[in-house]
Amino acid sequence: MPPMTARIREFLRDRRPEGPCLVVDLDVVRRKYLSFARTMPDTRIFYAVKANPAPEILKALAELGSCFDTASVAEMQMAFAAGATADRISFGNTIKKERDIATAYAMGVRLYAVDCEAEVEKIARVAPGSKVFCRILSDGADAEWPLSRKFGCDPEMAPSVLEHAHRLGLEAYGVSFHVGSQQRNTKAWDAALAAAAGIFREMAERGIRLKMVNLGGGFPTKYLNEVPSVEAYGQAITDSILAHFGNDLPETIIEPGRGMVGEAGVIKAEVVLISKKSADDQVRWVYLDIGKFGGLAETMDEAIRYPILTERDGDAMEPCIIAGPTCDSVDVLYEKTPYALPISLEIGDEVLITGTGAYTTTYSAVAFNGFDPLKAYVI
Amino acid sequence: MPPMTARIREFLRDRRPEGPCLVVDLDVVRRKYLSFARTMPDTRIFYAVKANPAPEILKALAELGSCFDTASVAEMQMAFAAGATADRISFGNTIKKERDIATAYAMGVRLYAVDCEAEVEKIARVAPGSKVFCRILSDGADAEWPLSRKFGCDPEMAPSVLEHAHRLGLEAYGVSFHVGSQQRNTKAWDAALAAAAGIFREMAERGIRLKMVNLGGGFPTKYLNEVPSVEAYGQAITDSILAHFGNDLPETIIEPGRGMVGEAGVIKAEVVLISKKSADDQVRWVYLDIGKFGGLAETMDEAIRYPILTERDGDAMEPCIIAGPTCDSVDVLYEKTPYALPISLEIGDEVLITGTGAYTTTYSAVAFNGFDPLKAYVI
Repeated sequence: MPPMTARIREFLRDRRPEGPCLVVDLDVVRRKYLSFARTMPDTRIFYAVKANPAPEILKALAELGSCFDTASVAEMQMAFAAGATADRISFGNTIKKERDIATAYAMGVRLYAVDCEAEVEKIARVAPGSKVFCRILSDGADAEWPLSRKFGCDPEMAPSVLEHAHRLGLEAYGVSFHVGSQQRNTKAWDAALAAAAGIFREMAERGIRLKMVNLGGGFPTKYLNEVPSVEAYGQAITDSILAHFGNDLPETIIEPGRGMVGEAGVIKAEVVLISKKSADDQVRWVYLDIGKFGGLAETMDEAIRYPILTERDGDAMEPCIIAGPTCDSVDVLYEKTPYALPISLEIGDEVLITGTGAYTTTYSAVAFNGFDPLKAYVI
Repeated sequence: MPPMTARIREFLRDRRPEGPCLVVDLDVVRRKYLSFARTMPDTRIFYAVKANPAPEILKALAELGSCFDTASVAEMQMAFAAGATADRISFGNTIKKERDIATAYAMGVRLYAVDCEAEVEKIARVAPGSKVFCRILSDGADAEWPLSRKFGCDPEMAPSVLEHAHRLGLEAYGVSFHVGSQQRNTKAWDAALAAAAGIFREMAERGIRLKMVNLGGGFPTKYLNEVPSVEAYGQAITDSILAHFGNDLPETIIEPGRGMVGEAGVIKAEVVLISKKSADDQVRWVYLDIGKFGGLAETMDEAIRYPILTERDGDAMEPCIIAGPTCDSVDVLYEKTPYALPISLEIGDEVLITGTGAYTTTYSAVAFNGFDPLKAYVI
């Protein structure tokens, strides 16, 4: 279970914020950063801003020396506002408008992700001389939130993409991949690293020396199940790099998002209604004031099962269907696998949804059903 | 296909708005309202504000005499701001905080949805004497966007919920149901109306005379397939009411949302990237600057297939996978059933996604990946 920190408990007790809200404990974020930095001392850390772009989080990480993986010009501006310099920012989205690349270049950003020749050509036109890394497909097996084929090209295509960049005056800098979010298998990086090493060799034969492997994210948050430690991931990845690259080690970077901030956040919510649909219904419906459109989008397909704490934990439990407050029938959090909550739970009770520091505030809808987006307090 | 109106074409040509945006033609909304009003002259129309709460839309409908189905206090405030009076507002969400019911009552709202005794008790405490209608489950068969069991109780339970309301001093006013959104079978209302008539009879035997049947929404938007006309729905519903209620006709209300505004809106978007994942890939990936998190959430499970117009329609077509611009692998719009687009389509081309007037702007995320929420222009 992710931590329910004393600082968050005190904040909620003293401030009693109205309505559903996320509270993030910066101490947990800082500890996570230091844990990544200590475990992988030769790897640069690019925090994936999209996981939670709260200014306080970006500032704390910038102060610790973090770099930033950004998906858009707006995220770059946030990283700059937090004190990052251009050399610590990567434009990691493989899908970029040419005018956004031009804006990034004007701000000094020189590191770009690509996965096809058309994207290389945009960068060559408006960000001359920049470094590009080619994202390759990875199957994401074992990830709780597996990735589609949306990003990356087949590893066999990467050398021609990188050579195209080289010919157009860009620096063919390296290879990236992503093993899937919430990846619980520490060995998942191995196959992708083998493919990356193959691309390095192929490029060397073409006379182009790649320098960097971007190991992506995938580092998990503790939800209901235990997950391996940052140290276990670090060791497995280091072993794979040594096995596939030998003594000619590449520079490496990682892009933790969920792994950096997920465990640092807790959502406070309220039970709005408890009901049954018929006199002989076996399973209660428990309706909260937060749902899929208020920040818990990652319950989609019940992929991520957040731990939920109540004031009545310890009482006898019973399975429930848990749903959100909107007039939308898809706004149901857990139904296929009902969720055990105390039988004594009552309308008006407060519940704490832990492990919610990542991919919650920014997923929330602007005003669906007139409900405000998720408020956040970073302490 | 939904209309691409001359007014929207002119607006886009003259204003050339930057970035993805929705343009809504109020003339289409007004025509739809009048079509509902003409077809079902004895039925009160409660526009489902959640479908699109743009102030201009609410104002146009209020001027035509529309009532409003609201999901939250904020939506009620929007309806008031548009000129509606309290007697034209229903609090149609079955999941309400007691303090929100109290606020609605203080604003003069006297019509509330319930589906269980606990909700009745909240209303009795803070909105004494109000009218309540009990929502019953309906299986939503044939709907493109079927509803879960989230809202409503089994019809057998409805009489006890309504009798509970009566005993607590509320007016047991009627029954509601929802046959599923984008319901293309005009006969879908029949089974629910039969159940409603049964509840009316059961309540009469208990000495309580119900007055109203809320026929819900479900009226479709034309997407790629043709749908029956408003007139066809009106006729089928009228026939069912006569069959099940005989000469003792209840008051009726409808709650169109998608059916009122879906066809009135067009999203303008841009092709950001076109690529293949390997040299022998058969299907192109087409990436737009709008996706699941920018307003097209209803492409979830590819449930709704929006018509997409390009500047090159008429050229030879080829199937594509269509995806959004975010660094999120679930942000893919059409993949299971690829979508045919012109082979000549190019990066930077504008595309028009029609039938997008409902359930787009408010579904959009606050700032996922740093992208702005969907902008809207109501003309």
